[in-house]
Amino acid sequence: MRARVFVTLKPSVFDPQGTTVAEALHTLGYAAVKDVRQGKYFELDIDATSADEARKLASEAADKLLANPVIESYRIEVATS
Amino acid sequence: MRARVFVTLKPSVFDPQGTTVAEALHTLGYAAVKDVRQGKYFELDIDATSADEARKLASEAADKLLANPVIESYRIEVATS
Repeated sequence: MRARVFVTLKPSVFDPQGTTVAEALHTLGYAAVKDVRQGKYFELDIDATSADEARKLASEAADKLLANPVIESYRIEVATS
Repeated sequence: MRARVFVTLKPSVFDPQGTTVAEALHTLGYAAVKDVRQGKYFELDIDATSADEARKLASEAADKLLANPVIESYRIEVATS
């Protein structure tokens, strides 16, 4: 089962990487891009019998390893394919 | 309009970061996690009148700046909220 974990900085945390990307896009002429936030993306291939089990495992992995809960939040999507 | 860009290494490209994360999860006792691929995640806040326009702009930004088309592929989702 495939679980996708999206880790982003919390809205209150300054994101210099995203700001740099936004400025680079403005330099390239894309003024319509108002703001950019950059995060991390993980695809976990999990050996689980149900989507709930895969979600639980991905959530534990995110809490313990993938995200820093002090400054980051995460979102999980489980695909059965 | 919010566009999400997911950039991942192409399947044929070796992903040492993902392998390291997978090994760390095994060390933590999560043997059910068979494989991990790590990528980048961008949230673009785009000033566009339609979802199609936002998607087109995000796609151009990904081609030119966010992804390296030689080794990476990307996927775009547009949310109207």
